Amino acid sequence: MTIAKKIKSSMSQSSMIRKMFEEGILLKKKYGADKVYDFSLGNPNVDQPDEFKSELINLAHAIIPLKHGYTPNAGYPETRQAIACKISRTTGLKMSADHVVMSCGAGGALNVIFKALLDPGDEVIVLNPFFVEYPFYIENYSGVVKYAQTKKDFSLDIAAISKAINRRTKAIIINSPNNPTGKVYSKKNITDLARLLKEKGRAYNKTIYLISDEPYAEIVFDGVTVPSVLKAYANSIVAYSYSKTLSLPGERIGYIAVNPKIHEADNLINALILCTRIMGFVHAPALMQRIVARLQDVAVDVNVYQKKRDLLCAGLVKAGYKFEKPQGAFYLFVKSPIPDDVEFVKMLLKKNILVVPGSGFGGPGYFRIAYCVDDTTIVNSMQGFAEAINECK
Amino acid sequence: MTIAKKIKSSMSQSSMIRKMFEEGILLKKKYGADKVYDFSLGNPNVDQPDEFKSELINLAHAIIPLKHGYTPNAGYPETRQAIACKISRTTGLKMSADHVVMSCGAGGALNVIFKALLDPGDEVIVLNPFFVEYPFYIENYSGVVKYAQTKKDFSLDIAAISKAINRRTKAIIINSPNNPTGKVYSKKNITDLARLLKEKGRAYNKTIYLISDEPYAEIVFDGVTVPSVLKAYANSIVAYSYSKTLSLPGERIGYIAVNPKIHEADNLINALILCTRIMGFVHAPALMQRIVARLQDVAVDVNVYQKKRDLLCAGLVKAGYKFEKPQGAFYLFVKSPIPDDVEFVKMLLKKNILVVPGSGFGGPGYFRIAYCVDDTTIVNSMQGFAEAINECK
Repeated sequence: MTIAKKIKSSMSQSSMIRKMFEEGILLKKKYGADKVYDFSLGNPNVDQPDEFKSELINLAHAIIPLKHGYTPNAGYPETRQAIACKISRTTGLKMSADHVVMSCGAGGALNVIFKALLDPGDEVIVLNPFFVEYPFYIENYSGVVKYAQTKKDFSLDIAAISKAINRRTKAIIINSPNNPTGKVYSKKNITDLARLLKEKGRAYNKTIYLISDEPYAEIVFDGVTVPSVLKAYANSIVAYSYSKTLSLPGERIGYIAVNPKIHEADNLINALILCTRIMGFVHAPALMQRIVARLQDVAVDVNVYQKKRDLLCAGLVKAGYKFEKPQGAFYLFVKSPIPDDVEFVKMLLKKNILVVPGSGFGGPGYFRIAYCVDDTTIVNSMQGFAEAINECK
Repeated sequence: MTIAKKIKSSMSQSSMIRKMFEEGILLKKKYGADKVYDFSLGNPNVDQPDEFKSELINLAHAIIPLKHGYTPNAGYPETRQAIACKISRTTGLKMSADHVVMSCGAGGALNVIFKALLDPGDEVIVLNPFFVEYPFYIENYSGVVKYAQTKKDFSLDIAAISKAINRRTKAIIINSPNNPTGKVYSKKNITDLARLLKEKGRAYNKTIYLISDEPYAEIVFDGVTVPSVLKAYANSIVAYSYSKTLSLPGERIGYIAVNPKIHEADNLINALILCTRIMGFVHAPALMQRIVARLQDVAVDVNVYQKKRDLLCAGLVKAGYKFEKPQGAFYLFVKSPIPDDVEFVKMLLKKNILVVPGSGFGGPGYFRIAYCVDDTTIVNSMQGFAEAINECK
């Protein structure tokens, strides 16, 4: 056998997002890009903020010793300090640079966290529907995924989570605003979760970690704010990415923020730094570390996404689709008019509309629309959406 | 227990390079940076080529759709194509873009390769002295490290490697030009290794992979060239980094090149792409991918390193040190005048000279000098080097 058995088996369950993406390339070649409505990928089309562009230009011209040299494995102290200041300011917690470890996006952050935490057989609770990569990230370190369903409105179902916890539970991962649902968990929902984790931790005499994956934290609408898990629960760790906040998912820059009150904080932070190093990340890209240090209060224009959401929701309601209106991220998780979501996605494909079946996210009976696309794509897709639902009647 | 048991145990064997680095920070604070001779870290001090600087400036100003967006997991097709062309040209092999997967430096490349290849218990041969991270990279995927000694002149000892191979051997990793010795393996040495691996593969009826870690491939002196492992052996994989060629280790950009003739090439390449994704790298940083695509024939001025090597070697010979004069990289692996290399490194530390004990590289009785430093650091350190060796007499 050439490749590892585990990887061979993972390869056979190829990603549905990937499949749609490749289907899209074929369709675009056949019909032309403007005749294909590609909602398959969360690749933000909103422009980087001007502040980012000027910082990049300034840095490109700047003469700095060891400008592109190795940084400490945890990242530049100035960058970590800037992030710690921002979190301290917004949460009231006493974060220092030591509590921040720079990462290659949230994907890198989560892998480093799981590598640092998980012994083989440790369980991690994942909430359906979930971001497709979580099971991989957990199984990479021989962790065991334990699924728990969210409520009909995609809020946290505390009773379901309670049932999923046992003495092998090491952590739960949440994602708010959520991919694929766009759900933002309420403050009460987070407080209830924190209370449950404290109770269960006491009952099993162990620490249950709350890992919060927050790449969409800044992409929120209607004046909503994302409640801080760091404030709600001591044993919490945040995985953050600038991919969406600054529209630069390709540059692989994010961070891990560790609650200063977490169990054995020093030990955990050193483990995260070691894992960043030995997994071959070494550290987050240097140039981007320098830039984000200066852009702590800068974000893309969220109104652009809010308008897209409104445009899409209005159109789909008119066509007869059912969904929970999301308050964040740039995804809509829509009920499939027929029970078989994969089948319905194929019907949309015949209208040159590319979306992803909910089954891929552990949410069968739904499909995901990534609406980080041009307004015209949304507008021009509406006829196809209407035709497809009508064909189900 | 908070963190994973394996990580806890790794943390207790903290890196000697790291220790010297931290010692250096303290010394520099105490005596001033110009009074401390820091040869501990391979952080290249040679400037980026002008071509790199202009490309970065051009790109910073350029308006490109989805400029900082996600790239395919394997990297931009144009970048992969440019690399494939270069390798085809220099080796005569028929490389296509498909045989290249972009990576977060060589560290990222090697982790992706081992993740794709290793089942638990698979053995990988590592040659003493070795780059300190190899054992971590292999053990990350439950691989087993099997050590084999190189010869006195640090060339490949084919008999020792032959002895180390058994039916659990999955791969051997080599590094030429070598860190920590600066050795460049000769063409005959590589051909002999290829012959051995073919024989052993036939004997055990399995593929033994030759993984060649080549971040220093361009940093060679005296007109030496690095023989191509891709030409010598079909089941070969190259891990490359632009860290040294373009002096940008902080930007985490490199690639994996898979031999077109390798066993089950398609399967392996797809596994490498999947692993890049699920390990959280997602893909190599986008901006740097665009830049290196255009700089395939550009490198730092290697003469600068060669002069440093000559300056250092001349000084150390005069002081009475013994070593093999290296033909590449920017390391000198020097025989410790006393058997205990850690002890001698402490003696040098008293002269404000920071080097790393050979024990950390599996080469006890030696110490490593990373001479990617200012010429003045080399010149001014010589008195301390002379004093230290004299104190051993």
